Amino acid sequence: MIKDKHQVSINDTIVLIPLLKGQKISLRIEDRAQKIPKLGVYNPAKLLGKEYGSTITLGSNKYWLIPANTFDKIETITRKAQIILPKDAATIGLYCDITPGSKVVEGGLGSGALTIVLLTLVGQKGKVISYETRSDFAKIGRDNITKAGLASQWELKNQDIMKGITEENMDAVVLDIPEPWGVIDSAYDALRPGGSIACYVPTMNQVEKTVNIIRKSSFIDIHTFETLQREIVVGSRGVRPAFEMLGHTGYTTIARKVLAKEK
Amino acid sequence: MIKDKHQVSINDTIVLIPLLKGQKISLRIEDRAQKIPKLGVYNPAKLLGKEYGSTITLGSNKYWLIPANTFDKIETITRKAQIILPKDAATIGLYCDITPGSKVVEGGLGSGALTIVLLTLVGQKGKVISYETRSDFAKIGRDNITKAGLASQWELKNQDIMKGITEENMDAVVLDIPEPWGVIDSAYDALRPGGSIACYVPTMNQVEKTVNIIRKSSFIDIHTFETLQREIVVGSRGVRPAFEMLGHTGYTTIARKVLAKEK
Amino acid sequence: MIKDKHQVSINDTIVLIPLLKGQKISLRIEDRAQKIPKLGVYNPAKLLGKEYGSTITLGSNKYWLIPANTFDKIETITRKAQIILPKDAATIGLYCDITPGSKVVEGGLGSGALTIVLLTLVGQKGKVISYETRSDFAKIGRDNITKAGLASQWELKNQDIMKGITEENMDAVVLDIPEPWGVIDSAYDALRPGGSIACYVPTMNQVEKTVNIIRKSSFIDIHTFETLQREIVVGSRGVRPAFEMLGHTGYTTIARKVLAKEK
Amino acid sequence: MIKDKHQVSINDTIVLIPLLKGQKISLRIEDRAQKIPKLGVYNPAKLLGKEYGSTITLGSNKYWLIPANTFDKIETITRKAQIILPKDAATIGLYCDITPGSKVVEGGLGSGALTIVLLTLVGQKGKVISYETRSDFAKIGRDNITKAGLASQWELKNQDIMKGITEENMDAVVLDIPEPWGVIDSAYDALRPGGSIACYVPTMNQVEKTVNIIRKSSFIDIHTFETLQREIVVGSRGVRPAFEMLGHTGYTTIARKVLAKEK
Repeated sequence: MIKDKHQVSINDTIVLIPLLKGQKISLRIEDRAQKIPKLGVYNPAKLLGKEYGSTITLGSNKYWLIPANTFDKIETITRKAQIILPKDAATIGLYCDITPGSKVVEGGLGSGALTIVLLTLVGQKGKVISYETRSDFAKIGRDNITKAGLASQWELKNQDIMKGITEENMDAVVLDIPEPWGVIDSAYDALRPGGSIACYVPTMNQVEKTVNIIRKSSFIDIHTFETLQREIVVGSRGVRPAFEMLGHTGYTTIARKVLAKEK
Repeated sequence: MIKDKHQVSINDTIVLIPLLKGQKISLRIEDRAQKIPKLGVYNPAKLLGKEYGSTITLGSNKYWLIPANTFDKIETITRKAQIILPKDAATIGLYCDITPGSKVVEGGLGSGALTIVLLTLVGQKGKVISYETRSDFAKIGRDNITKAGLASQWELKNQDIMKGITEENMDAVVLDIPEPWGVIDSAYDALRPGGSIACYVPTMNQVEKTVNIIRKSSFIDIHTFETLQREIVVGSRGVRPAFEMLGHTGYTTIARKVLAKEK
Repeated sequence: MIKDKHQVSINDTIVLIPLLKGQKISLRIEDRAQKIPKLGVYNPAKLLGKEYGSTITLGSNKYWLIPANTFDKIETITRKAQIILPKDAATIGLYCDITPGSKVVEGGLGSGALTIVLLTLVGQKGKVISYETRSDFAKIGRDNITKAGLASQWELKNQDIMKGITEENMDAVVLDIPEPWGVIDSAYDALRPGGSIACYVPTMNQVEKTVNIIRKSSFIDIHTFETLQREIVVGSRGVRPAFEMLGHTGYTTIARKVLAKEK
Repeated sequence: MIKDKHQVSINDTIVLIPLLKGQKISLRIEDRAQKIPKLGVYNPAKLLGKEYGSTITLGSNKYWLIPANTFDKIETITRKAQIILPKDAATIGLYCDITPGSKVVEGGLGSGALTIVLLTLVGQKGKVISYETRSDFAKIGRDNITKAGLASQWELKNQDIMKGITEENMDAVVLDIPEPWGVIDSAYDALRPGGSIACYVPTMNQVEKTVNIIRKSSFIDIHTFETLQREIVVGSRGVRPAFEMLGHTGYTTIARKVLAKEK
């Protein structure tokens, strides 16, 4: 948490935003030289004590120096495979009621973008347990989460979530895997009554299979959402939506556990 | 917080979801008879000790009994004027980085729907201060927030936010008022470096004025978003988007404070 | 065609648009008293010679009197079942290249809304042949098309299009039926080389089946489109999209015949 | 019109669609060697007598040979500046009731993409008159329209439409210019009663000015539309919307002339 701080301190995650065009760079303030994209080998500790909100020149570029927010952390993630975008992560977070203190199981770590949102939402009293069998994702995800300063409440399990979930009494189970329908029963067992499951999938066929299996189990309040987001541009000639827009990411299905669904 | 609880306890906020068609009812478990929409005069304490996830019959209807989540709290709010919907509240929350421990000023309480989301996100260590001059909104908002079990971290100020913000070092200032451009300067003063402002407005004209004023101040990373959400329906004849859809709610402009913007 | 005319003439199709709020009424100018919704028993010949663009008082309402355009004709149709809306009809018309002189087979007449658009586009040298087995649709469709003044280039076949198409050398085959995949082969035979097929269906499952069958036949340039349309409202407080919006109608798949598809 | 023809004939406009990935090429069949993008110097008359729907090898590529439809003509246009896309052209055409025989004034020829749609819709008995002062647009537009085989019903005026419209009794006036509000009065004079004006503009500010000026004149049935279109992809893993999508093109305002608007 970088609340109330006005200077860069050890272990902060900061973001450098170019004054002119260019990409953001996010850094965790540790005292060791490291290879940083765009900056080369650099020791972030050089930034200690700098004022947040000020500018800094590195190489030939000038940057704003501010604490990284969740959006920055996702935007600057090292990626392998498609990530869940903020617009969808925000929907999953709110609609599953992932709040301070929540305990969440995540199936499919991927690059850790959604994990970063979940860890941020649950805070210091919560917990996120991620199931991931691929060691390449495990490494990238761990690096991204560590750089984001969120590793303390996180547990990585080198287990296939399709084979079961060992946790109980979870507030939410969030699935970003190709066949979430294979995990509905174990997700049910892992949830507290009233706890939420979220299944994020790219195709309508996956939505159909997922919803039909969820309906057979004791879940209620089953809804699937598509979220579209456009930027609005204020230009010299007026206001209009941006020409660039992502036409599709994925569908999010949410449902809540009850004790025994009456038919 | 109703974490880890399996029975209804005093001060819980619960939701009753009809097994068949009908509207949700949300209740706060206090030991006093009160008038509740659809239930008439009823003492919620009668529900104490009931198992979450079970069913209950009240009057002629049968309901699922589960802890209310943030979505339920908003859906069952007593409304006066248009509320900010979950799709937009989720965007504001994540894009402004409102997280456990955040301190947030809100301009325009309205019915308190967004306030409920903000209070949920900041948790037991955070704080939300709402400016509202209309006493009718103040009353309805307070009732809604209290019923949602979120009053402890909340402060209501009977002040016009157009006339200034007295807080300092805030993590975010969130404005749901007709003329947010009149508050940009005082929001700037109220924020910590790197803190975020969000302005939620329904028209393109308001977006234009807001963005143009923000650009003159020392804010960076200025973006305006439109978020559209559709439900997807899984029916007996296949999968399709829902026919019902809200064509528009509002545009959300986000920006972040820096110390002195270089031109 | 009501081109270049400034007064109401026999056989014109006109529209009455209320000066204040209310629904449009469309009429065909025939010299016989008839029952007209909102007007009661009325002889449209009373309007002969009136100036287009002028106002007229009928009963207690005042109306603008103008030649009905295609949009009016669809809007004032007698409906039985869901109609294809102008936004989708416009896509079908242009993307299938239905132009003056085109010959088109339509499968599923329904209420005749799409037929009215097709007949309008093909004009006096074209032809539209509609297959429809349900006599209730046949009657309603015929009435709507006749009232629209478009019956001369139209042929109704009381045949099930699922059982085959007897026409040859058609420029387009347009299908608004639940199982268009059953008509792909006969549509192929009915089309000229380069001719287009359009399949309009409400679910993703139908899209999938349709596209997969079309791909097995000798069609190229296969595309499926979803068209969303919102009104924009210019109000006293600024410009914004309308709150009302139809979230979904149907998906339109278009493809073009070639002689023998090489794999 | 290439109706009913099965072989390539002189003056046909044809399209070559690559069997594998690649761009379409459209050609007008004239007997003269010419420089054709992707084909180099080539005499299209070599294609005379070829069967429509067959394949042909040119250079190292194999193509389907079919009559060009309106969509092809737009897609293969030589462009200078942004063109009006088919989704918007289709809306303008249908909502303005541009049908066989219509007489239309167009303000702003641009590259002629919309002109091609208008000329196609009005057919052999209609007429489109385009106002364009820029000689570069005039040349490109003329080339595109000629190649599309649509020049016979077209008239180009080297006049600034902002300075007036000399035609009378038009069925429609279509404006794709930055300040359509300056042409509303002359468009009114040019239209028959019941005739339609369409104004296509990219920003909300332009919509606002346009609508407010139209409202002051004797137009009724004033509506502004935004049309969004997505492709749907049928893949091996299921059906989903395409990732690529154009977030914005322009807003189309439609209105109809009456004789004297009562206030």
